Amino acid sequence: MIRHYCGLFGINSRQEAARHAYFGLYAQQHRGQESAGIATWDGTTLHEHRGMGLVPDVFNEVVLQQLPGDYAIGHVRYGTSSTSSLRNAQPFIVHHQGMDIALAHNGKLVNAEELRRELEEDGAIFRTASDCEIFVHLIVRAMRRKDLESAVVDACSRVRGSYCLLLLIGNKLIGLRDPLGIHPLVLGQLEDCHVLVSETCALDLLEAEYLRLVEPGEMVVIQNGRVHSIRLAPTQTPKQCIFELVYFGRPDSLIFDEQVYLCRKRMGWQLAFESTPDVDFVMPFPDSGVYAAIGFAQCAELPYEHAMIRNHYVGRTFIQPTQGMRNFSVRVKINPVRAMIEGKRICIVDDSIVRGTTMLTRVKKLRELGAKEVHIRISCPPVRFPCCYGIDFASRGELIAASKSVEEIKCILGVDSLNYLSLEGLARSVAHSDYYCRACLTGEYPVPPEEGCGRQVCGK
Amino acid sequence: MIRHYCGLFGINSRQEAARHAYFGLYAQQHRGQESAGIATWDGTTLHEHRGMGLVPDVFNEVVLQQLPGDYAIGHVRYGTSSTSSLRNAQPFIVHHQGMDIALAHNGKLVNAEELRRELEEDGAIFRTASDCEIFVHLIVRAMRRKDLESAVVDACSRVRGSYCLLLLIGNKLIGLRDPLGIHPLVLGQLEDCHVLVSETCALDLLEAEYLRLVEPGEMVVIQNGRVHSIRLAPTQTPKQCIFELVYFGRPDSLIFDEQVYLCRKRMGWQLAFESTPDVDFVMPFPDSGVYAAIGFAQCAELPYEHAMIRNHYVGRTFIQPTQGMRNFSVRVKINPVRAMIEGKRICIVDDSIVRGTTMLTRVKKLRELGAKEVHIRISCPPVRFPCCYGIDFASRGELIAASKSVEEIKCILGVDSLNYLSLEGLARSVAHSDYYCRACLTGEYPVPPEEGCGRQVCGK
Amino acid sequence: MIRHYCGLFGINSRQEAARHAYFGLYAQQHRGQESAGIATWDGTTLHEHRGMGLVPDVFNEVVLQQLPGDYAIGHVRYGTSSTSSLRNAQPFIVHHQGMDIALAHNGKLVNAEELRRELEEDGAIFRTASDCEIFVHLIVRAMRRKDLESAVVDACSRVRGSYCLLLLIGNKLIGLRDPLGIHPLVLGQLEDCHVLVSETCALDLLEAEYLRLVEPGEMVVIQNGRVHSIRLAPTQTPKQCIFELVYFGRPDSLIFDEQVYLCRKRMGWQLAFESTPDVDFVMPFPDSGVYAAIGFAQCAELPYEHAMIRNHYVGRTFIQPTQGMRNFSVRVKINPVRAMIEGKRICIVDDSIVRGTTMLTRVKKLRELGAKEVHIRISCPPVRFPCCYGIDFASRGELIAASKSVEEIKCILGVDSLNYLSLEGLARSVAHSDYYCRACLTGEYPVPPEEGCGRQVCGK
Amino acid sequence: MIRHYCGLFGINSRQEAARHAYFGLYAQQHRGQESAGIATWDGTTLHEHRGMGLVPDVFNEVVLQQLPGDYAIGHVRYGTSSTSSLRNAQPFIVHHQGMDIALAHNGKLVNAEELRRELEEDGAIFRTASDCEIFVHLIVRAMRRKDLESAVVDACSRVRGSYCLLLLIGNKLIGLRDPLGIHPLVLGQLEDCHVLVSETCALDLLEAEYLRLVEPGEMVVIQNGRVHSIRLAPTQTPKQCIFELVYFGRPDSLIFDEQVYLCRKRMGWQLAFESTPDVDFVMPFPDSGVYAAIGFAQCAELPYEHAMIRNHYVGRTFIQPTQGMRNFSVRVKINPVRAMIEGKRICIVDDSIVRGTTMLTRVKKLRELGAKEVHIRISCPPVRFPCCYGIDFASRGELIAASKSVEEIKCILGVDSLNYLSLEGLARSVAHSDYYCRACLTGEYPVPPEEGCGRQVCGK
Repeated sequence: MIRHYCGLFGINSRQEAARHAYFGLYAQQHRGQESAGIATWDGTTLHEHRGMGLVPDVFNEVVLQQLPGDYAIGHVRYGTSSTSSLRNAQPFIVHHQGMDIALAHNGKLVNAEELRRELEEDGAIFRTASDCEIFVHLIVRAMRRKDLESAVVDACSRVRGSYCLLLLIGNKLIGLRDPLGIHPLVLGQLEDCHVLVSETCALDLLEAEYLRLVEPGEMVVIQNGRVHSIRLAPTQTPKQCIFELVYFGRPDSLIFDEQVYLCRKRMGWQLAFESTPDVDFVMPFPDSGVYAAIGFAQCAELPYEHAMIRNHYVGRTFIQPTQGMRNFSVRVKINPVRAMIEGKRICIVDDSIVRGTTMLTRVKKLRELGAKEVHIRISCPPVRFPCCYGIDFASRGELIAASKSVEEIKCILGVDSLNYLSLEGLARSVAHSDYYCRACLTGEYPVPPEEGCGRQVCGK
Repeated sequence: MIRHYCGLFGINSRQEAARHAYFGLYAQQHRGQESAGIATWDGTTLHEHRGMGLVPDVFNEVVLQQLPGDYAIGHVRYGTSSTSSLRNAQPFIVHHQGMDIALAHNGKLVNAEELRRELEEDGAIFRTASDCEIFVHLIVRAMRRKDLESAVVDACSRVRGSYCLLLLIGNKLIGLRDPLGIHPLVLGQLEDCHVLVSETCALDLLEAEYLRLVEPGEMVVIQNGRVHSIRLAPTQTPKQCIFELVYFGRPDSLIFDEQVYLCRKRMGWQLAFESTPDVDFVMPFPDSGVYAAIGFAQCAELPYEHAMIRNHYVGRTFIQPTQGMRNFSVRVKINPVRAMIEGKRICIVDDSIVRGTTMLTRVKKLRELGAKEVHIRISCPPVRFPCCYGIDFASRGELIAASKSVEEIKCILGVDSLNYLSLEGLARSVAHSDYYCRACLTGEYPVPPEEGCGRQVCGK
Repeated sequence: MIRHYCGLFGINSRQEAARHAYFGLYAQQHRGQESAGIATWDGTTLHEHRGMGLVPDVFNEVVLQQLPGDYAIGHVRYGTSSTSSLRNAQPFIVHHQGMDIALAHNGKLVNAEELRRELEEDGAIFRTASDCEIFVHLIVRAMRRKDLESAVVDACSRVRGSYCLLLLIGNKLIGLRDPLGIHPLVLGQLEDCHVLVSETCALDLLEAEYLRLVEPGEMVVIQNGRVHSIRLAPTQTPKQCIFELVYFGRPDSLIFDEQVYLCRKRMGWQLAFESTPDVDFVMPFPDSGVYAAIGFAQCAELPYEHAMIRNHYVGRTFIQPTQGMRNFSVRVKINPVRAMIEGKRICIVDDSIVRGTTMLTRVKKLRELGAKEVHIRISCPPVRFPCCYGIDFASRGELIAASKSVEEIKCILGVDSLNYLSLEGLARSVAHSDYYCRACLTGEYPVPPEEGCGRQVCGK
Repeated sequence: MIRHYCGLFGINSRQEAARHAYFGLYAQQHRGQESAGIATWDGTTLHEHRGMGLVPDVFNEVVLQQLPGDYAIGHVRYGTSSTSSLRNAQPFIVHHQGMDIALAHNGKLVNAEELRRELEEDGAIFRTASDCEIFVHLIVRAMRRKDLESAVVDACSRVRGSYCLLLLIGNKLIGLRDPLGIHPLVLGQLEDCHVLVSETCALDLLEAEYLRLVEPGEMVVIQNGRVHSIRLAPTQTPKQCIFELVYFGRPDSLIFDEQVYLCRKRMGWQLAFESTPDVDFVMPFPDSGVYAAIGFAQCAELPYEHAMIRNHYVGRTFIQPTQGMRNFSVRVKINPVRAMIEGKRICIVDDSIVRGTTMLTRVKKLRELGAKEVHIRISCPPVRFPCCYGIDFASRGELIAASKSVEEIKCILGVDSLNYLSLEGLARSVAHSDYYCRACLTGEYPVPPEEGCGRQVCGK
């Protein structure tokens, strides 16, 4: 499975800020299921609670009572750059010269190792493996000579890679996106207070109004009900992560000012336009492929079916199956409707093939149930290069498309046909195709990765 | 929300019987989310564990270790006839004359009060409010004069209503359905052992083979690897619960030998055939309406869209929203995709309207987002009568269709048009339309209800 | 270890009855650490909560909120007659003919098997292995012809053995002791309401006033602020359990109208009077031997020391020690003060030797630390016969004094001298020596035990 | 209540090091009940687990499985210098230049604020309020120029106050005591591995052998089975905390090479020697006063009684009593034996009076029960000055002896006589009276406290 990014939430001057953060994270739970945390400021003290697991498992009424205050930032995390543990859960809190700072981060620095080494030589001590802590050290060091905002700008000038940051310092709430705007961050309004979230679905749940994107390279400082904007770097062409639209974002969200639902439908439409097999119907692997499949079916004028059923209770921890239960983890998630499969020519639409193992198991199952033909259409070009900015596609050498041609993958999967969306098709599916990072598809990295990222995996 | 029935699972002569029961219940979790329980027999002792909550919350590895044995029955429950508490969770266990009996029940007796009174007059003591305990008393009393199987037949001759029973007594596993077969029960095979489940999706998860329905009025006795069949009552026309197909069953299940997915698609098709509005697209309220909407869209030759997004993490307990968050519980479950709604003429397909309040909130939301027209199509006739056999549609007088005409409901909801599937259309959607109980739609109760059930609510 | 009896608590017409029960059980925790339960009556409904573990583990504020009402009975249990499980935890609740009955029991019936068989033949079904359920069946059967009080009297006429019962039926609270008064039950007053408890230490914690013993063979019915007394059987010489004074009772309690502290001190005094060794000091094994040791030291005019230190945190579950940690469970409970042991002649006073294994380990430890002489004095005669009325001294054949002489035990333990208190000495330590059951010491059972109890173990 | 210090445990080259640490902390639970933590090193990775609560609540088998390795340090904490929260729980873990460091600390620095300010000016960031983190920063900074051992020595030269430290860095285990040796730390041996503990009772539980004190101002470095000793500072007269002997230590421990039991007995003996009232008997308030009371009774040739009974289950969290239950928290802990109090002249021996409130309640209770005379003897001189090295006697101005004379306290308590042990008597009770810090009794602080500690409270 592709590991998600993180989800961010910030709010200022709002009673029960922690409760709002809870729901803001809850709506963005799909962005990180490993840990969750909230920090609040009550005018004198910074409070925090972090835990492993889903938002409703980490927080309850008793915990919320211990998070008083009108200011909050929150974070859900799916570990990318660091190992999985409570210590790495965010927000990250420090005390420095009488000041309490809470920081939450979504992204991945490419020069983290170098910065960490340099800071350690200067006496810095690290408690976690998270990039967050690097920011904190850089900011604190810069604050010896500068005010807070300038120190943050200074810190950002030192780092390279992807980063979306939220800072809560007293009743000042700061949000920023890296100069390429790799990850999303938007500004919303809830009555007289401001909200910063990764995805607009969090605004919808809170019934907050969407104001605008935080721009790439922009830092917004929210204080006393006013939003002040500071540029971190000269404007350049954004390179936003195309996978937010292909895979990560909730379809009801607006991300990078694009409606995710429509983008996916257009990807499906383009995909059908490029190559429609002669089949009885189109169906997705729920839930990731649903929207592309709908677009595909409409363009291809083929019936749309929903013949793989998802178990809604999956996601909770459960006990180990018995040894005899082969492919259990695949089967427990989705189960095909037998009567729809037997004797049918089927076109499956999905958004990606990473290692190919899950796809292979599912195709085999369809064959077992008597599918006459199985055609696969993928609503994104092949993922051939690793992401250096935060997506954990797969461990090294595991990306099937990195070393195999489409024809070879087709043979491995044993399907009647296999097509990926073309880069042109993908470009046509979004509003500003120039504004996207497509490094995992093309190998063209907008920020030069550290030694090791792109090269080792793909042999360049 | 319509409350589900219960889910049953039984297995004989299988190592790790409890682990199999765990997964058999897990696959049927949608049938009961209030409590779960498993009883096992290890050759000398009956073990049990029951708890409130979902299957993965009630059981873990430590608990499973305490459920040794090769024989198991399990139960998931959504309270119908009794109050919600651990005491009422099943299986129900008794010790009688050196014999340990475990019993699990899905259904509702209409003469429960009468039997309970009679048994109490004869000295019986009740620990729970469950119908299960009535069966136990009847069986034990009959066993004074008869062998076990005859005693069960005898007990069944005393009760009226709906019932599916599983009994585990030593290494004997018994399953039975009432003479009308109101609830489902099927027999499967897993290598050399037999499995009894409510829905076939549990067989799929275990990779067990589907053998056949337990027939209405049939009792199957499984022992030493053999299945023996006993008739409880003369054959009569079955009256199976139509709502299993309309709403309860998982779409990938075979229920009453009908493929749920196909039935729902046919209901949608018939519905479109009866009345198709002039709209831009068709969409379901996920997930209940998905399959009827697909059938509807195909018949009506309209685009199918999936423009209401379900939050996959809902279902877990979460904290209370703030006071300002109106209609929170509706909003947290599904969120519309704004860009798809504005200026559109939309046809919503769903499977039922019970009280109308949720539907009203959702329609209002669509209007707020700028829907030009909203048409509702319901893939089942109006639910005008209470169910006396186990479905908890709503408390008295709350069934909107019991007192309002379709035209009135349309006005209340403020929609441009509203149509329900006709009884004829429903009949055409299933294989043997005579074999179904439609009392909630027609008021014709196949088993005369106790004073109070049908009458009081509907004023007949 | 000697397993304790159970502890009972009942209260009527008191706000927050459950909270009072909580503290009433908390004060009597030493009487049962295996499970705890409370049932309350709120005027219309009987509520209950039971759980495995200590009172503070089973109950919390949330649970107490679910136990509303002004009437409560509670129970702590140390399994004697039935296996250890939540199902056997008390109070035992039944519904019968519109009436809710809660029952809690301390004792053990000698004709339980016979009654159980007889009731089962009459159609009774048992859910538990507890004697409680036998009472319930007997009472309910008798109520067909009689009012409640008479039915209870009738039920008591059928059983033989030891029993203290509390019943809560609506706003009627009933307490009773068997005709021999084997177990304790006292009546107290808290402002205008009545309280029934096993030991007076529970009254002290609640600041309730001690009124009087419930007499052997007396049933008290508390309703509308009045206490009504009914005799269960003709008055006879009581046979109260001497071990309540020797071992079970809290030293600050009044049991059978005797002050436990003083009784134990007198036992120690008598013991010293009968045989005082020439030693440097006297010390107890805490905490059981403390009070007898104090009496012993005073009579013998020897220094009292407290040179074995008890770990106050023992009692909680903890993880398993490593394999190398021999005799860990003994060592973790008490640790000797090295400097007090080396080169010393020591007299240990304790209240009993059951199997002798723990004593042996402790004596060895003292020898290891350099004790010059170790003398043991036991403040009770040898336990040579099993108890048939509820004490679980040890499993069969394990009572060291049943098959070994005092001289043999002395050799096994490897001590310099060993003396037990004489029967006469014990008699002199209590107020009415005729009023006590001493069957475990003499083999004279006041209620003839069922086949098997006394005989099999002791070979008579 | 007087808040305890912390307890430390370290072990090297021992399989199941975490399990040993668990029991080593368990035996020292009395030294800190607020949080517990263990860090282990498995040859490549440092693992840790910390939690709020008692050792058995924080750790279980599952947690222990996640703490592999042959090296461990552990910590139990009763918050002194910092607020109570998981973040402040120890051991404290940092990563620095590829090295993992775990550190546990018992003590309190008097120049913490100054050091913290200075370090922050140099760019250090603090995550906690614990002194531990100051040490870490000092050590890491010193390591830029020096090896580890020298860096630790250097760090210690910067701090003032009390400190006992354990460090685990790879397979090197370091323990040290501050130059005055204010807190205890001893070295033990378990077969071929070494153990560092605060009190010897932890060695006893593990059956480890006691080797020797870690000397004041000594740092021991344990690696490859060898112990290497380094001096932190020139030898000076130790100033060990006298309250370890008076109150904190377990009586079965050897602390500062003194047997705690004997010291307390001698304090009681001296106390009786200084002033014995004419009473019927002597009794302690359990458990703190037991050993002094025994010594007192022996010197005074008065009977020793144990007439206040301690509830062994106290210590667990329990629910709030009802409003009517006055003085509940006192009563729930100990309950007097009524029959022993009435008409008696009683001498109570206890180890300290801090605020006087608990003592007042207990004396009132004895009067209520009819005590004819109540005399108090305290086995330590009046605590008149705050501790600056880690004991949290009471918040400011609350020390009753700081502002009241003994005569005034006697009047406030309403007792017939009140005597404290003299400073000379205390000196005679220990082996090397010069080696102890008695600042809380005399106001002579061996390390000059920061502005504020001694002065503000006591008005000097």
